[in-house]
Amino acid sequence: MALIILAHPNFKNSAANKTIIEELKNSRLQIEIRNIHELYPDYKIDIKAEQDALLRHKTVIFQYPVYWYNMPAILKQWFDLVFEYQFAYGSKGDKLKDKNFIPSFTVGAPEDEYNTLGNHHFRVYEFCKNLEQTAYYAQMKYIDPIYFHGTSLEAGYTTDDVKNKAIDQAERLLKRLSELEEML
Amino acid sequence: MALIILAHPNFKNSAANKTIIEELKNSRLQIEIRNIHELYPDYKIDIKAEQDALLRHKTVIFQYPVYWYNMPAILKQWFDLVFEYQFAYGSKGDKLKDKNFIPSFTVGAPEDEYNTLGNHHFRVYEFCKNLEQTAYYAQMKYIDPIYFHGTSLEAGYTTDDVKNKAIDQAERLLKRLSELEEML
Repeated sequence: MALIILAHPNFKNSAANKTIIEELKNSRLQIEIRNIHELYPDYKIDIKAEQDALLRHKTVIFQYPVYWYNMPAILKQWFDLVFEYQFAYGSKGDKLKDKNFIPSFTVGAPEDEYNTLGNHHFRVYEFCKNLEQTAYYAQMKYIDPIYFHGTSLEAGYTTDDVKNKAIDQAERLLKRLSELEEML
Repeated sequence: MALIILAHPNFKNSAANKTIIEELKNSRLQIEIRNIHELYPDYKIDIKAEQDALLRHKTVIFQYPVYWYNMPAILKQWFDLVFEYQFAYGSKGDKLKDKNFIPSFTVGAPEDEYNTLGNHHFRVYEFCKNLEQTAYYAQMKYIDPIYFHGTSLEAGYTTDDVKNKAIDQAERLLKRLSELEEML
């Protein structure tokens, strides 16, 4: 039912993203997970395989850690190559029309630093406009991002804090998916 | 004097970015150009070499075509790897402090489509907040992006249109650099 595009250059050592993926695997949800950094360590993405995966699903979840206020490079490469002319956009490019586009990410620093007077100066949604407009241009349904703050162990969060918040994020994601299913 | 981080996955066939780079090469400006997609086709960036290049210059220009409302993947990879903890940020991470950070890019579609009611819904600057905040977090001086619209030949622009606009962009960039020099 749902396709998870997992984009993490160091998934093995991740706490947050790994916990979210494990929770999703243990849920009743039928999912296909594509760990694109593991599949394409040389960044040479198999465009056809990725497009075929997209065609199999109604909902696409993008799961990743935020680096430098943006998606990791492997996910940007995925969009640049897979969202092709006449597939994702263009006169005949309606292959993704009406599919759900759900960003699900994790943010290192605390929420109160993502504020005009804080260290990171902008609200999280202000960094998501490229995602939102990518969804619109591909005629997809943009769902507001699901995320949590505080994955950085250097900032004093414990692995348990992070895992608990990741479990909560997976629950919120599953709830959103079930709402979307009811909308069909 | 200025470092150009050129990020274009298909530079050989580019009209806009190639013209801008040629104009800069023909100027009086002392520049170092690093064509990072050519240097690192496997996306395995030599972090030390890139950091050393940054240390040699007062001004860094990021030259690239906008893809999906964002920088190309190779440039994101460059930031993710080169802007390291204790180099670009962190308690001792002040190596880039006060350097100029200048985005210089090209946009395929016309300007009037980058508008609330247009096809691309947002103004260009709304897609640049991740760049702006990246500069702030590295203690760099963010200079408003220099760019032009309409590189897309499919949209009816001719190669001559694009080259003329690229020459104009190079002139604006050189003017900005000379203003920054005077500010020293």
